[in-house]
Amino acid sequence: MTGSVVIAGLGPGNDALVTPEVTAALAGATDIVGYIPYVRRVPARPGLTLHETDNREEIARARHALDMATQGRRVVVVSSGDPGVFAMASAVFEAVEAGPETWRALDIRVLPGVTAMLAAAARAGAPLGHDFCAINLSDNLKPWEVIERRLRLAVEADFAIALYNPRSKARPEGFGAALAHLRDCCEPGRVLIFARAVSTPEEALRVTTLAEATPEMADMRTVVLVGSSATRVILRDGAPFVYTPRAVLP
Amino acid sequence: MTGSVVIAGLGPGNDALVTPEVTAALAGATDIVGYIPYVRRVPARPGLTLHETDNREEIARARHALDMATQGRRVVVVSSGDPGVFAMASAVFEAVEAGPETWRALDIRVLPGVTAMLAAAARAGAPLGHDFCAINLSDNLKPWEVIERRLRLAVEADFAIALYNPRSKARPEGFGAALAHLRDCCEPGRVLIFARAVSTPEEALRVTTLAEATPEMADMRTVVLVGSSATRVILRDGAPFVYTPRAVLP
Repeated sequence: MTGSVVIAGLGPGNDALVTPEVTAALAGATDIVGYIPYVRRVPARPGLTLHETDNREEIARARHALDMATQGRRVVVVSSGDPGVFAMASAVFEAVEAGPETWRALDIRVLPGVTAMLAAAARAGAPLGHDFCAINLSDNLKPWEVIERRLRLAVEADFAIALYNPRSKARPEGFGAALAHLRDCCEPGRVLIFARAVSTPEEALRVTTLAEATPEMADMRTVVLVGSSATRVILRDGAPFVYTPRAVLP
Repeated sequence: MTGSVVIAGLGPGNDALVTPEVTAALAGATDIVGYIPYVRRVPARPGLTLHETDNREEIARARHALDMATQGRRVVVVSSGDPGVFAMASAVFEAVEAGPETWRALDIRVLPGVTAMLAAAARAGAPLGHDFCAINLSDNLKPWEVIERRLRLAVEADFAIALYNPRSKARPEGFGAALAHLRDCCEPGRVLIFARAVSTPEEALRVTTLAEATPEMADMRTVVLVGSSATRVILRDGAPFVYTPRAVLP
């Protein structure tokens, strides 16, 4: 009886974006562990136990999954998007490192998925078509000064920037501060894309500029893409195409 | 008769990592356009024309796809990984912007996929578990000085870094220069992961340090992940786990 922990990415929301590898892992699981809305994406069936936990309980959730695996269970920890991008994979390995030696011997695998910034970028065109970075705006786990410093350096490097977790009830002011900081170091016409709940029925996409952007345009289900200085908007009937050219001119 | 261009990501190589959305688009296509090895991943069938083109012909390939769509064809442009990450989506929108007005009215959609860095990170653990960036080391389309500057700023921001296209026959020296540059600004123990052809039968993963890394460890099928200063290695029997913690301490 050998247990396992698979940390699987469910993609941004639509089942058509779940990889067959993840679908197979879910079908072979005895236990599903994760944040409530992600666990609810997995259909109930005989022999499968669903363990729903609240947000901000990542380490307890990870330890629970590892503990069940030592008892021979085939546990799948579900994340939205890709589990390695601001999601559950790091929490599981943190728990492994701090935990009993037996956990290191477990069969632990990460199954990648389509992370939110890639789904958002695809809807808009190709805004991440050149060098880019991803920054988690949540300051639960890092000081705000680190976030500001990274924003400044990312703009200096002229990366396109994906901002995850821009806004939550617990810290509504952070994203406004990030916008103010971007206004200090970017031109007003810098392209911003607010992509909410991409691939779900609640999907909403807004292409705007740094000058026009307001904090209220983002909520916890939004990923914000900030263009590089080279990002272009192609106007047409309907939603514009946004892309960042492949070339940087000398 | 309405044509369309779908730019679809085939993922890193294994069919178990192709999203159902992409599989459906391939099944509905009249024409597949792309770089030879990617087009060869699509099975031939009656009514489907496969158009294989060489590398470095992205704009010609994009124009061909758009032109066929204006004639009512349902064209799928295939990329490996995600089409918006150093792949075909930007080339298509560049061609649209420079092309005839009729191209802007076309039904053009991008279907995201699992990009190489996410597949590589998943194999190693969660090395991109905190803020990170992606840099294309190919200097076909940008001056080397821009690459060096971005590497330096990415290290200063303490991002984990994914390096795409580290090495090719046409420019074998670039990756060695990047390693030398990283040695100037990072400690020798900085974690590096060389991930080659992840999810294919040729997959090879090597976890090493900046001090031990050599240019020969990378080829054109490799993505190189450079840890942040906080990235950790969990030793155990078998391949180690590598992860970047979620938290930055004040």
